[in-house]
Amino acid sequence: MSDHVTIVEVGPRDGLQNEPYTIPTEVKIELIERLADTGLGVVEATSFVAAPAIPQLADAEEVFGRIQRKPGVRYPVLVPNEKGYERARQVGADEIAVFTAASEAFNKKNINCTIAESLQRFAPVLERARADGVRVRGYVSTVLGCPYQGEVPVAEVVRVAEALHEAGCAEISLGDTIGVGTPAKARTMLETVAKSVPMEQLAVHFHDTYGQALANIHACLDAGVRVVDSSVAGLGGCPYARGATGNVATEDVVYMLNGLGMKTGIDLMALARVGDWIAGELDRPRSRTGQAILKRS
Amino acid sequence: MSDHVTIVEVGPRDGLQNEPYTIPTEVKIELIERLADTGLGVVEATSFVAAPAIPQLADAEEVFGRIQRKPGVRYPVLVPNEKGYERARQVGADEIAVFTAASEAFNKKNINCTIAESLQRFAPVLERARADGVRVRGYVSTVLGCPYQGEVPVAEVVRVAEALHEAGCAEISLGDTIGVGTPAKARTMLETVAKSVPMEQLAVHFHDTYGQALANIHACLDAGVRVVDSSVAGLGGCPYARGATGNVATEDVVYMLNGLGMKTGIDLMALARVGDWIAGELDRPRSRTGQAILKRS
Repeated sequence: MSDHVTIVEVGPRDGLQNEPYTIPTEVKIELIERLADTGLGVVEATSFVAAPAIPQLADAEEVFGRIQRKPGVRYPVLVPNEKGYERARQVGADEIAVFTAASEAFNKKNINCTIAESLQRFAPVLERARADGVRVRGYVSTVLGCPYQGEVPVAEVVRVAEALHEAGCAEISLGDTIGVGTPAKARTMLETVAKSVPMEQLAVHFHDTYGQALANIHACLDAGVRVVDSSVAGLGGCPYARGATGNVATEDVVYMLNGLGMKTGIDLMALARVGDWIAGELDRPRSRTGQAILKRS
Repeated sequence: MSDHVTIVEVGPRDGLQNEPYTIPTEVKIELIERLADTGLGVVEATSFVAAPAIPQLADAEEVFGRIQRKPGVRYPVLVPNEKGYERARQVGADEIAVFTAASEAFNKKNINCTIAESLQRFAPVLERARADGVRVRGYVSTVLGCPYQGEVPVAEVVRVAEALHEAGCAEISLGDTIGVGTPAKARTMLETVAKSVPMEQLAVHFHDTYGQALANIHACLDAGVRVVDSSVAGLGGCPYARGATGNVATEDVVYMLNGLGMKTGIDLMALARVGDWIAGELDRPRSRTGQAILKRS
């Protein structure tokens, strides 16, 4: 099994999208560029979802158009539909991500359509991406639980992951959106999906709502996954509930991977400095690893 | 392998001992009693270390003498020497804990003696405990790294754990005092020690300094450990560095164990309420699980 793990840094998109105060475009650009400078190979840059849905990322064109892209680094962007695809392509995006959920109730609330409808909505985007040679990542959320319907059967996760895979997604990210999963369940879910979609094309995306993210990631690494989503400084979630946490912090993931002897190509100290800077900009807490190693150094 | 895990709740002792402001004796007593009411089987109540060393726990006699002990719950107390043993026994303590480190440098700084000297210092305490039918737990700290000497060879951990075991300790708690360990190293360390001391007599004690505690605990559960130390609300560590974390939060551990289908006998919601209350008393952040389930309920 490979000892290389690809981190998909989702801070600039998933991390920022729910921040309540408008973050200056300059800060977003600086964040993306500084992240790419730490050795990260994939930095999800922004989202071309309609501005009224996610006002924080309404400057997607400007952000994506202005970043200095580093050779060898991939900068996927979130795309909800053909309109979004066109906007993304106009500013030169060459890798996109589409999203749906394994829970009907969540899709209904979140994107106001059924799972089947969301897959249909992506179909023309995926066709054009294929024709354009654009790599597509597919996000499946609520893979271990849903805030509206509770339990999500693994069979549903498999069905959605399979559909995205067959529709041409090069990678499927399995997201525990509400952070309720624990290691054995996470591993079983991943292994079940991996019977239908090759493990090399799967990624895991955990949230730290109950503090379980790293334990889940470790269990999934044991099962063979080699792509992990995370967010610098744990950006995301609800920053104004004291102590609340959202995405797992990239610093904590890289610290663990280093300890496990796995390779990421990331300079952890440089990453911690970026985390420290953006946490300061957004007045959010630092990651635990960031705080520990910066205090030490 | 048993599916029952014993949680050793160390909040009232390890969690409070470094709090800079004096906590009222009443609060300490209430904390211990409320913790025992959640179904916890072991609550480390206080420490009979000399008051100048740990002023926060200078009221150990009063705390221990006044708690209403619940039948079936064990209340170990920390004891550094014969003097401490006598103080503890005078107020009716029937279970004690002694402590040393696997790092010579740490022992020198922390208790101003070599490992060998610390073991000698405990010898008369352990003899009296045996004669008195008092159960003894032994703490070994810095098992995965030391703030002064860096690396700690596993052979040193084995040597100290063996010595405590031979001296009559019924249980040895292996502590990653500075939280630097990662899952594979933690598991290897545990499995190596378990070649000399039966796994049933080992406990693990992790700190969340780098966010690794739950991942480490999960790896050690996989290796067979069934006793885990933790601290309600993650009490301990340095509470005034924003975002800093010390002991792993009991709520996060119990949430994971529940998800793994393991039994603890603990009412997680009741525990979260205790965590919420004590975090409020000490003006500290809540545990992640506590915050998540109390918001939900």
